[in-house]
Amino acid sequence: MEFPVVFDLAAIRALYASGNVTPAALVAEANARIESGDPAAFISRATPSMIEDAVSRLLERAPEPNSLPLWGVPFAVKDNIDVAGLPLTCACPEYTRMPERDAAVVARLIAAGAICLGKTNLDQFATGLNGTRSPYGAPRSVFDADYISGGSSSGSAVSVAAGAVSFALGTDTAGSGRVPAMLNNIVGIKPTPGLLSTSGLVPACESLDCITVFALNVADGLLVRSIAEGYDPADPWSRPAAPHRLPREGMRIGVLAPDDCEFFGDEHNAALYRSAIANSGCRPVQIAYEPFREVAALLYEGAWVAERQAAFAATMLPQAALDPTVRAIFAGSANFDAVAAFEGLHKLQALRRQCEQELEKVDALLLPTAPRTFTVEQMLADPIALNAQLGTYTNFCNLLGLCAIAVPTGFSPDGLPFGVTLVGQAFTDDALGPLAQHLHMAARCGSGLAREAVPPALPEAADPPDTIEIAVAGAHLSGMPLNRDLLALGAQLVARTHTAPEYRLFLIPGAVPAKPGLVRARDGGGVAIEVEVWSMRAADFGRFVAAIPAPLGIGKVALAGGRAVSGFLCEEWATANAEEITRFGGWRAYMAHAQASNPQPSGVS
Amino acid sequence: MEFPVVFDLAAIRALYASGNVTPAALVAEANARIESGDPAAFISRATPSMIEDAVSRLLERAPEPNSLPLWGVPFAVKDNIDVAGLPLTCACPEYTRMPERDAAVVARLIAAGAICLGKTNLDQFATGLNGTRSPYGAPRSVFDADYISGGSSSGSAVSVAAGAVSFALGTDTAGSGRVPAMLNNIVGIKPTPGLLSTSGLVPACESLDCITVFALNVADGLLVRSIAEGYDPADPWSRPAAPHRLPREGMRIGVLAPDDCEFFGDEHNAALYRSAIANSGCRPVQIAYEPFREVAALLYEGAWVAERQAAFAATMLPQAALDPTVRAIFAGSANFDAVAAFEGLHKLQALRRQCEQELEKVDALLLPTAPRTFTVEQMLADPIALNAQLGTYTNFCNLLGLCAIAVPTGFSPDGLPFGVTLVGQAFTDDALGPLAQHLHMAARCGSGLAREAVPPALPEAADPPDTIEIAVAGAHLSGMPLNRDLLALGAQLVARTHTAPEYRLFLIPGAVPAKPGLVRARDGGGVAIEVEVWSMRAADFGRFVAAIPAPLGIGKVALAGGRAVSGFLCEEWATANAEEITRFGGWRAYMAHAQASNPQPSGVS
Repeated sequence: MEFPVVFDLAAIRALYASGNVTPAALVAEANARIESGDPAAFISRATPSMIEDAVSRLLERAPEPNSLPLWGVPFAVKDNIDVAGLPLTCACPEYTRMPERDAAVVARLIAAGAICLGKTNLDQFATGLNGTRSPYGAPRSVFDADYISGGSSSGSAVSVAAGAVSFALGTDTAGSGRVPAMLNNIVGIKPTPGLLSTSGLVPACESLDCITVFALNVADGLLVRSIAEGYDPADPWSRPAAPHRLPREGMRIGVLAPDDCEFFGDEHNAALYRSAIANSGCRPVQIAYEPFREVAALLYEGAWVAERQAAFAATMLPQAALDPTVRAIFAGSANFDAVAAFEGLHKLQALRRQCEQELEKVDALLLPTAPRTFTVEQMLADPIALNAQLGTYTNFCNLLGLCAIAVPTGFSPDGLPFGVTLVGQAFTDDALGPLAQHLHMAARCGSGLAREAVPPALPEAADPPDTIEIAVAGAHLSGMPLNRDLLALGAQLVARTHTAPEYRLFLIPGAVPAKPGLVRARDGGGVAIEVEVWSMRAADFGRFVAAIPAPLGIGKVALAGGRAVSGFLCEEWATANAEEITRFGGWRAYMAHAQASNPQPSGVS
Repeated sequence: MEFPVVFDLAAIRALYASGNVTPAALVAEANARIESGDPAAFISRATPSMIEDAVSRLLERAPEPNSLPLWGVPFAVKDNIDVAGLPLTCACPEYTRMPERDAAVVARLIAAGAICLGKTNLDQFATGLNGTRSPYGAPRSVFDADYISGGSSSGSAVSVAAGAVSFALGTDTAGSGRVPAMLNNIVGIKPTPGLLSTSGLVPACESLDCITVFALNVADGLLVRSIAEGYDPADPWSRPAAPHRLPREGMRIGVLAPDDCEFFGDEHNAALYRSAIANSGCRPVQIAYEPFREVAALLYEGAWVAERQAAFAATMLPQAALDPTVRAIFAGSANFDAVAAFEGLHKLQALRRQCEQELEKVDALLLPTAPRTFTVEQMLADPIALNAQLGTYTNFCNLLGLCAIAVPTGFSPDGLPFGVTLVGQAFTDDALGPLAQHLHMAARCGSGLAREAVPPALPEAADPPDTIEIAVAGAHLSGMPLNRDLLALGAQLVARTHTAPEYRLFLIPGAVPAKPGLVRARDGGGVAIEVEVWSMRAADFGRFVAAIPAPLGIGKVALAGGRAVSGFLCEEWATANAEEITRFGGWRAYMAHAQASNPQPSGVS
């Protein structure tokens, strides 16, 4: 039997569908790969009899191949997450205990057919981004054994990239679900905080910890995440999902300004970052990175170190049980009293507002996942400073409640992988998928060790049920005075586009705030007018329509490409004697012209 | 001139509408009442020339009586909120500074026509619920000068209850916007945290502080709050409003179980609480109060004391500047390090989940505002323990992000007032109004000193309508081919009527089934066209609108009598060369004519 280099879900499904491979055979192969792979990747492994039992239970309840979404799929779990029957160490031998139950997310994955092969190595108590802070050894990059694997989810990333398992669970507080994804050429899904239950996770920073998914491609990662997620009343940090959409066309991505591009001397990675931006097909918008950097600094240099110490204090272990570097980090908590903790919370709140202002300019951020990598030797020689460099572009994310997807985007001439991370507002977890997929495809860098692999297409996103799209052309456009009405209804921007080239635009006399009237010119004389398409729930759409004052109303607007959506109409009497502004091609251009030629004191609208 | 006992907004509007009273005269009367009232109520007052200037500015920009929602309405501001030109003390003389700008909420109220008469006394740095912790004296209950006014917003509550001002701003971290409302027989509006900007407020616990409104009745309080509120990007804690509705009938209210009813010996208040529940007209549901009590304990007995100390530390004042009791409270922060602060945050998060489970059983909580009151002498003798008793039912509220309305519900035989507080989920601020109003009405206890006053009705709820009305003029009329679409949506016929006499009707060329286009003729030439008004649910209306094909759409149609409802519009291109059928006065008459002159086999439409 010929097995593929890596076990992406499509390959596994095909093997099972062929009828030539049983779960027992596939899992045996996976287990053999673990056996012959990086000896530091796993801390504990499922015994042959445990695996046999798991396979039997699967075949009993779902005998048909591929009859569950993760039918017979081997996976691994970071050793700070409970798996019943496997010891839990957090890479601290003195901590070791034996969980009786699976963590909530593990239980969901097993229910979906997946088979857990073991617990993976990590930076102790998930404190680190490099993978060397473990008494169980330092896993290595699958591309060069001199180099770090990244961490703290070191063993999880390595086991996926090496083709031992299809996916693995990691965790991410500072960037532990993203940095090792980049360093091993795989995808890291860092969900919105609260989307995946943390019941059964040993906390690092309880208010920030996320369970993450390492996978070989975006489709696999999003599928696994969607199976693992779900509101959990037993987890105080769990939040009901509230999926948020992003435009399908004309996305704006936030990128680093040249002065903010810090790669610590790795010019290859700098060039790979520029290529990813160029390949994105999006409009890049330079954002001010400073407030994000200040948020990031709160995590290890600010009061949140005390949140780590709070978790460790709950273990009742002596400080001597800790790895020396981890111990030194936790000791930093002594510099903060409760007043300083609240001052830190207040500073975060103020920075959050500044970051929001940057995030509002774009649909997502596109950042380097990490600026560069290091050899194990380099890392051990300067463990805190170099670790901080690894987190340059990740540490702010959970403090701001954002989600992220790390994707591989190519290799340096030295044979080491680079990757970028898309960072989105809370609950854009799925909405980031298409762009992440596009970046991965465009990079032609494969998945893990399979550098020739082609990522499978994402399944079509199902539109949220019962939503209605509406084209807006005037005061409801993003940034215009009435856009707040759309936002208040929870409407989401779906596309920035134009009408069919058959419309004329008029300035409605006396409207406050100023508004255009969009009129279809069936007999020629029309142009394509700039519009945005927004989506909202039917009831909200109903209320929105009911609140529109004369002379405006809602009918159908033909878009470029011919599709018709609901959109603004204008009664004829209001445009009969109105100034025609068709030549500007849209309201935004007209307003820019009007303000330039007749500046108003700020504050007057 | 005879002035009313208290200055509720209806009384003020009536006085101004009569033409017999000017703002200058009314404000002079208010000022005289301050002068002769509780000498401890105000810390600083607007000078005669400041008041004269404020009145002049009002009359300049809005000369017409009642032409602004708070035209010429006198109000007071708690002295931890900035008012330009009046010193800011926080009841700590060493702190005194002179603000150059009004706090954001003060500016909004002044813009709406209100006139600020001064800054009111408070428990120092808003730390207390009793009103005795101030070097400027202890304001007294307006009903018995032996008794405390309640605090920390002591002077604000007293000045409203005594009829000196119409409303006053307070603040509320533990219950400072509610307890003094009860003790002075007035309404206290405690908004959802973030709804009112805290720009220009000296923080007590920055993450929890709310600016509140004291008013003589619910209608006044909600109006003032709605004027004061609004998203403020300059305030890191500001949140965009997201109003949430509650059922208008069949509300379930959460009440204390008998074992949780703690009135510290005041059996009269216990009976008044039971009466309020009985008078509510709602179904009472006993909730478990324990998790709320545990949340409440975090505020003064837990790490949040350090948040107060953080605010005080920012003043750079020595501890010696503090009132001795306040100093003792702040000193408690030394018991908490940053680890304890994070442990407190984690405990709150776990308790939040438990409280949510209780809140999900009901639409709102109905709790005693305070269990009982005390004389000033009693309070000074045991300042911390008795203050804690006052907060028995208030301290949890802001830690959980809830909103509340405190309403008077009657007097004890001893002549002291009692009240209850409705506590609702975030952004039910307006939705709590009708029940609060009902409780206040049912209690027949008046407003402040005016024990015979009858609270005015609330204005019709500005909630988004459940149902939306739509005027149809063609194929959707009763008996016409598309009427089935309305019936299928459960729409109900509301009225058979006509448009305003300003419309023309055209036969849309080629439409199947035949349809008219209704076009407003602003320049004359229009008639009243027969329409039917149908009512349907917002979501159904949304789907109905989305399904309408071009050239038709939904805008506003003016009905006979002038009311505008949603109704059909027609794009101009479709009527430009169409046959005009205005002369028939409606689609039904036209169709009757058309069928008479050119009969079709039935069944073809």
